[in-house]
Amino acid sequence: MTDDLRFVPRSEIARALSEANDPIVRAGLLATASRLNALYMIARAGSGHIGSSFSSLDIMSWLYLNEMNVQKNKNVSDVFFSSKGHDAPALYAVLIGLGLLPEAMLDGLRKLGGLPGHPDVATPYIQTNTGSLGMGISKAKGMIEADRLAGRARRYFVMTGDGELQEGQLWESLQGAVNRNLSGLTVIVDHNKVQSDHYVSATSDLGDIEAKFAAFGWNVARCNGHDFAALRDTINSSRMAAKPTVIVADTVKGKGVPFMESTQFGPHDFYRFHSGAPSAEDYKGAVDALQATLGTLSGQSGAAPMAVESRPRTPASPTSPQLHRLIPAYADALLNAGKQNPNIVALDGDLVLDCGVVPFRDAFWDRYIECGIAEQDMVSMAGGLSLGGRLPIVHSFACFLTPRANEQIYNNATEGTKIIYVGSLAGLLPGGPGHSHQSVRDISLMANVSGMTLFEPATGREASMALNWMIEQASGPCYLRLVSIPVALTYDAELAAEPVVGRGMPFTEGEDAVIFAYGPVMLSEAVAAAQELRQAGLGIKVVNLPWLNRVDADWLRACVAGIDHVFTIDNHYREGGQGERIAATIAQLGLERCPRVRCLGLDEIPACGTNEEVLRHHRLDRDSIAAFIYASLDPATDSKTLQCSILAKAGRG
Amino acid sequence: MTDDLRFVPRSEIARALSEANDPIVRAGLLATASRLNALYMIARAGSGHIGSSFSSLDIMSWLYLNEMNVQKNKNVSDVFFSSKGHDAPALYAVLIGLGLLPEAMLDGLRKLGGLPGHPDVATPYIQTNTGSLGMGISKAKGMIEADRLAGRARRYFVMTGDGELQEGQLWESLQGAVNRNLSGLTVIVDHNKVQSDHYVSATSDLGDIEAKFAAFGWNVARCNGHDFAALRDTINSSRMAAKPTVIVADTVKGKGVPFMESTQFGPHDFYRFHSGAPSAEDYKGAVDALQATLGTLSGQSGAAPMAVESRPRTPASPTSPQLHRLIPAYADALLNAGKQNPNIVALDGDLVLDCGVVPFRDAFWDRYIECGIAEQDMVSMAGGLSLGGRLPIVHSFACFLTPRANEQIYNNATEGTKIIYVGSLAGLLPGGPGHSHQSVRDISLMANVSGMTLFEPATGREASMALNWMIEQASGPCYLRLVSIPVALTYDAELAAEPVVGRGMPFTEGEDAVIFAYGPVMLSEAVAAAQELRQAGLGIKVVNLPWLNRVDADWLRACVAGIDHVFTIDNHYREGGQGERIAATIAQLGLERCPRVRCLGLDEIPACGTNEEVLRHHRLDRDSIAAFIYASLDPATDSKTLQCSILAKAGRG
Repeated sequence: MTDDLRFVPRSEIARALSEANDPIVRAGLLATASRLNALYMIARAGSGHIGSSFSSLDIMSWLYLNEMNVQKNKNVSDVFFSSKGHDAPALYAVLIGLGLLPEAMLDGLRKLGGLPGHPDVATPYIQTNTGSLGMGISKAKGMIEADRLAGRARRYFVMTGDGELQEGQLWESLQGAVNRNLSGLTVIVDHNKVQSDHYVSATSDLGDIEAKFAAFGWNVARCNGHDFAALRDTINSSRMAAKPTVIVADTVKGKGVPFMESTQFGPHDFYRFHSGAPSAEDYKGAVDALQATLGTLSGQSGAAPMAVESRPRTPASPTSPQLHRLIPAYADALLNAGKQNPNIVALDGDLVLDCGVVPFRDAFWDRYIECGIAEQDMVSMAGGLSLGGRLPIVHSFACFLTPRANEQIYNNATEGTKIIYVGSLAGLLPGGPGHSHQSVRDISLMANVSGMTLFEPATGREASMALNWMIEQASGPCYLRLVSIPVALTYDAELAAEPVVGRGMPFTEGEDAVIFAYGPVMLSEAVAAAQELRQAGLGIKVVNLPWLNRVDADWLRACVAGIDHVFTIDNHYREGGQGERIAATIAQLGLERCPRVRCLGLDEIPACGTNEEVLRHHRLDRDSIAAFIYASLDPATDSKTLQCSILAKAGRG
Repeated sequence: MTDDLRFVPRSEIARALSEANDPIVRAGLLATASRLNALYMIARAGSGHIGSSFSSLDIMSWLYLNEMNVQKNKNVSDVFFSSKGHDAPALYAVLIGLGLLPEAMLDGLRKLGGLPGHPDVATPYIQTNTGSLGMGISKAKGMIEADRLAGRARRYFVMTGDGELQEGQLWESLQGAVNRNLSGLTVIVDHNKVQSDHYVSATSDLGDIEAKFAAFGWNVARCNGHDFAALRDTINSSRMAAKPTVIVADTVKGKGVPFMESTQFGPHDFYRFHSGAPSAEDYKGAVDALQATLGTLSGQSGAAPMAVESRPRTPASPTSPQLHRLIPAYADALLNAGKQNPNIVALDGDLVLDCGVVPFRDAFWDRYIECGIAEQDMVSMAGGLSLGGRLPIVHSFACFLTPRANEQIYNNATEGTKIIYVGSLAGLLPGGPGHSHQSVRDISLMANVSGMTLFEPATGREASMALNWMIEQASGPCYLRLVSIPVALTYDAELAAEPVVGRGMPFTEGEDAVIFAYGPVMLSEAVAAAQELRQAGLGIKVVNLPWLNRVDADWLRACVAGIDHVFTIDNHYREGGQGERIAATIAQLGLERCPRVRCLGLDEIPACGTNEEVLRHHRLDRDSIAAFIYASLDPATDSKTLQCSILAKAGRG
């Protein structure tokens, strides 16, 4: 039983809500059942944001039960959305609890065809796509302008995080709301005081939030975000304001489960429940706490206690000891580089843990700058540091660093200084967070920066060598693209060539075709595909070309000599990926006999799901790759059986 | 004489400054002489920002004469820079007046090898590259962090605009300066109340600036930015603050020349002297006014009046009646579209005039949203409008719209809505403003947005057809890339094919080679190059392919059939431009006989200069193109003479 997952069925929530009369008790029942259900979803998915979901759930429950006219037609319904977006499990749990999403979706979080890790408009009742911070108020403003043109009037509630208040766009969006008199808009700051890694005050203190919003002309109120009566009264009184309103709701990250509550952590500890799945032990403790609260609330309501159902936890996939991780290797390399080069300054955007910067930070506090969720500011600061003679190394997730601060990165490049940008969580995987976090445009976004050299390592050893090359040998700015997920490599983790710009290294040999790829995810799929094809009698040369925007023409000429078929595999959109660059280079070589190039990569917005689901969905898994190559080569051999088997495995047979 | 340009020689400024004792009179002398010299530079260059230069000149003069320890070594000197950057003529004039830049540079504004339209660190005493707004405080923060690590302490003065306060990054940068205790930093807002098109209050009112900065924890002071004593006292008292300081300096745009002063314009007029060159009449009137002030100041100082020298105005290149402009055609097309489609909402980022949105705005005030200098907010608002059922058309300069709001554009695309983005001032030209404004990365930045269709028209007619296609036929988001400069077309301005995705139209015929290009600048150069090569006996097919990220494979196959040499010309970096895409497509066609592809485009940060200088510098002018093609084809004919002539014209002979 301890390994079961527990949830409150929709029917029980409906019964309890119908039996309770007091709006405050009803909100408490929905919020607590939703905490249990959100936790169920996150445990089932294996990842998700507990802390923010719990801090926001009282507010969401109150709004949906008491404030909003909710309609399936999104253009008629009152509007709630969370600009931070990573509290999506909370919103899903509320919608399931109210019967607006099917109960079966409790098992669908971060699954293909289920509920994405961050909100997406393809889901009923989801009003806009969020997950990258700071856009929410602007989005609401546009919706309200559309309402005005259509003669509609409805209520808007936009939730933001508090760490999110570090983003420039949020402040950019405030003044226009006042100037254009968008008084129907209420912003609620889920002020839980903790951002991704640490307390907001320790990361990049916000100062006086109320004074800031007031200075931008907003009506400002503040209340306890876990006190339903206070929420009710604050929202009510703000309805009289002739200006847009912000309610700073004081909340507790992890609210509802004492040992998950942020008040239980020391000022310099990492908060443990920002993202990721709970351990089995933590899960059980949390469920017990939430069930106890449910019992208490049921007693207050006079209704019978809600029955809790349980389902077996899906057996976790065995954690293979062979899983290979780049981030720890990068962390070591950065620490060592810091020891050898006193010029290095590391900058971070509230992802010090995920980006592997903790060892450097702990060793060199004076050469570490925590910038908070402020990528543009961080990148321009790096520009200033570089002008001042330092070597800045800038860290964030690739999906945020490269598009959000793109103009700033280019501006730095025009100054001829050297800065190293490190983008983690790069590529299609993990598939769970969804498209706001799947960085599949960053090669294109960085390759067009004049003088920038891009590199994606396939092993920890290669990551370390690449960082050293960038520090010691590169003359201009560099971008180190890092896959963050652990990967079961299909090649030797010690493989790594000395960096020579534009040149790669074969991981397998063969003469029927060559595959160019990079990074641990796609190289592992490519090598596995080559192994499958070997059984079909085809010899495939898989080449690791880690230089994403540099191709040495002579090396390439030798690489494809005598080979009729070239395949490229991008962990990225095909458009602007490495494959297009290789194909373009081949066309420019002026070969007597030109091989046929076929580029594999993404052509559509990436799907959300498990890593396996997502690879398969986009036909970038080993079986799909093998089948595609096999079909492309259309060999005259009689290995029809194998072909069928390959195609069948890829779901095309 | 009326057509001469007048300036105060450096020697006269030095003499007057040495003869005057009162710091206030000295600052007035330097500022007024610098106004005259900045006006000289702008008139000579044919473009530049008079209004902002004049509003900021008293502040700059005071700082350089009285506050700053100025050293040639940028890492030792006290630091001043302007974050808005377009007031560069003012700064150059002060530096020339103080003997820090050579007097000959008065003739070098916006010329190759001279003084760039916006500041660049390649120029002595220029501390950082600005021109795109909102980055300055972040840059200074990084420099101060570098100082701390190096054990240096010096003073920092960063000037910002007031329209610039609409940019989110500015607010993003404030809190960290307080949290990290950067008390050596003084920001001076050149609060001249007028931005690119209109009064700030009419564009996107800033509300209470002082309250805003104070809420972010800054020490705030305010004074008259044209009152030297007030500047002195305000700067002095701010030195005691233990926090970073902002001084809101109330100024007048165009200060010093009564008819150029912004106080002389009605609240809804366009301010006439934001950018561009003065007319001959305005120039003369301004010079007379400034010389009168100089005389008055000299009288006050007790020194002899400064002698003013004059030089003949370089004869303006004759304005050909054949110059073709896309923006007016676009403006008409947008207006007509607005009449036919009530769903269209136009958004603008303080460039309503330059982007051709005035006719639409004046006809449809209710469907026009002026967002100010807030591209991220504007783009996300467009996302909300689109979710609300409208068809937003978003306008700004390409250089700001596509990188600054890149993540927001992608977020909108993930929602599956349709939005049309229109980027003006696209491409390498005009060459005068410099690299902050030369949009040569936008194809790459937009092409990687899933579902986005890019189009660059070569004629006004094609611009109009493209807009209609985007409104009526496109299913997803689109990017219309517009060259803003008037072009002397070398082909018929009526040429335009019905839009068929991925297919283009030959402008000339020939079988020795094919050139793919797009847009009026490069197509005009390509057609002219083909005409030159025709004289050398070579037949060149020049194809207009306006679809920047779509190539119809069948059409392309037919286009290159039987041709051995393919050239592409990008008004963009080669990396990520159209040429790479064409080359990659050819490699994927699997042709029996593959043509050799050669891609022309930018490979380095674009130079600043006149349009002719810049094209030639990057070897993208007609002569360089013809010479390159001729040399590439290396024909066995005996047309050596012609070859030599072509190569000589391109500077390679």
